[in-house]
Amino acid sequence: MDSYPSRLHRAIRDRQTPALVGLDPRLDQLPGPLIDGVRRRCSQDGPAFVAAAFEEFCLRLIDVVSPLVPAVKPQSAFFEALGPPGAVALARVMRRARDAGLIVICDAKRGDIGSTAEAYARGYLAGDDPEAAAWPADALTVNPYLGPDTLEPFVRTAVERGAGLYVLVRTSNPGAGAFQDRLTAGRSVCQAVAEAVEQLSRAQAGEEPFGPVGAVVGATWPNELADLRERMPHCPLLVPGYGSQGGGARDVAAAFNGEGLGAVVNSSRAINFAHSREPYASRFSPSQWESAVEAATRDMIDALADNTPAGRLRHNADS
Amino acid sequence: MDSYPSRLHRAIRDRQTPALVGLDPRLDQLPGPLIDGVRRRCSQDGPAFVAAAFEEFCLRLIDVVSPLVPAVKPQSAFFEALGPPGAVALARVMRRARDAGLIVICDAKRGDIGSTAEAYARGYLAGDDPEAAAWPADALTVNPYLGPDTLEPFVRTAVERGAGLYVLVRTSNPGAGAFQDRLTAGRSVCQAVAEAVEQLSRAQAGEEPFGPVGAVVGATWPNELADLRERMPHCPLLVPGYGSQGGGARDVAAAFNGEGLGAVVNSSRAINFAHSREPYASRFSPSQWESAVEAATRDMIDALADNTPAGRLRHNADS
Repeated sequence: MDSYPSRLHRAIRDRQTPALVGLDPRLDQLPGPLIDGVRRRCSQDGPAFVAAAFEEFCLRLIDVVSPLVPAVKPQSAFFEALGPPGAVALARVMRRARDAGLIVICDAKRGDIGSTAEAYARGYLAGDDPEAAAWPADALTVNPYLGPDTLEPFVRTAVERGAGLYVLVRTSNPGAGAFQDRLTAGRSVCQAVAEAVEQLSRAQAGEEPFGPVGAVVGATWPNELADLRERMPHCPLLVPGYGSQGGGARDVAAAFNGEGLGAVVNSSRAINFAHSREPYASRFSPSQWESAVEAATRDMIDALADNTPAGRLRHNADS
Repeated sequence: MDSYPSRLHRAIRDRQTPALVGLDPRLDQLPGPLIDGVRRRCSQDGPAFVAAAFEEFCLRLIDVVSPLVPAVKPQSAFFEALGPPGAVALARVMRRARDAGLIVICDAKRGDIGSTAEAYARGYLAGDDPEAAAWPADALTVNPYLGPDTLEPFVRTAVERGAGLYVLVRTSNPGAGAFQDRLTAGRSVCQAVAEAVEQLSRAQAGEEPFGPVGAVVGATWPNELADLRERMPHCPLLVPGYGSQGGGARDVAAAFNGEGLGAVVNSSRAINFAHSREPYASRFSPSQWESAVEAATRDMIDALADNTPAGRLRHNADS
């Protein structure tokens, strides 16, 4: 069985980029022609129709981005908002992404105690074998508020299955600091969480540079990102907040090691809905939304290569 | 439209108890005769079979406890562990509980930023109208780690729909204090969260004693419970950790106001699986598991009435 960091880094080396594309379907932003097409095929209404549209949109997104990037991050909430039809669509989308050779990071931010945490882990962490879970993620985002003991059941299942975790450490939203930055004897809550996460990952890393327990650190806080990267040398990072939330390529440079490894950088809306945003909206019509997605993805890949150590991935592949 | 605290307290007064029964189905602890019955009816295997067993178990639990208690708390994780069939079963269980006149608190501990938080809220917070969400909860547990700004979309949807929230403040697990108790200038993280939660609830309470934003505070920490109750006078409390986790009736006394209102106390495993635990295991056979559930529920109700201000609910009803 292959560990999560080993599969992740193989995929990153293969695509020569750490760009991660979020799958964040929102009905009011889906391309009009896609909606019309689904409406012609789908006789149902309400959540079943929306779930069909979300599934079609995400499957086509996966077709566009799977040759370009190593990983995708479906946002569970948008599917859950639809109820059971959304839950079914999410499972299908994740399975298609696995079939396309993508690493799948399910963004569900779960967290609970003991055997309840284990139930979440069993449901989402498929790891190396896509058949091992109903929602077949390679990795899952988890929330640490309940305490380090509540991360352990997730870690056990992750290690058993070759899956990964990304623990929320410093999130990308404007109010992230309200609780995460509270200082105790000069050390913030998120630094304390980082230490717990580093310990868990280091204990599982063995001789490898990275363990299976990673961390979420927002691109919108470059100073915190640099500090937290240093505090968690064995942790793969998931960096949200690039693009629509305001983080730029230079802001995420500190996330990487010298080889351009150790982090994935996520963009969701700016890629998913590129057809309705400049500079793509004036180059592509709504029916060319997949070309807009491809152009936005390539631009993100180039920006990361030009402004961060991720550029080494191309260089190393060429040499 | 009726607010959450008003519906909750009407239900508590009507049943004269704040006892909340968790719905925590676990395959290895379900009564043997129930499993056998489901196996005879259900030709499917794997997750579909387990989901059928969980649904049958929870529907029968609801039939037993709905005349006795005001509310139930389905634990989403156990259903999610089964994938989409579990998601369908959870929706059916919640709908049956609503039909039975129970307040339904969905324990899913969700939390995310902005429009993603709103998507979770739309999926789970039905509030006053059970048709308003696919998983029709009256209230949802949410995780505050991301910051107070991420609670606001939940609060907006809750207010719109007459639903409630229970924000994790001080959880019941042994490691709860690792991050929640870190002190900054003499005030802990969970006290800071409590202050944010109280502000949100007070702002919505109007002339009423309680607002729609409540808090989770574990029964396993009686001193913290008393402190946090004082800090959140407008917040309905959800107190887990009673029973199997070690909290007793006296430990939760501080959760209530003088009328016995303002809190619900949850027991899950000790009631769900009473047939396999003393003193019930020697009084009831596995095929009498529903009688064991009823006896355990009545014993919890009596213990709360005898040892906490919840006893006033009976007195006030009699007078």
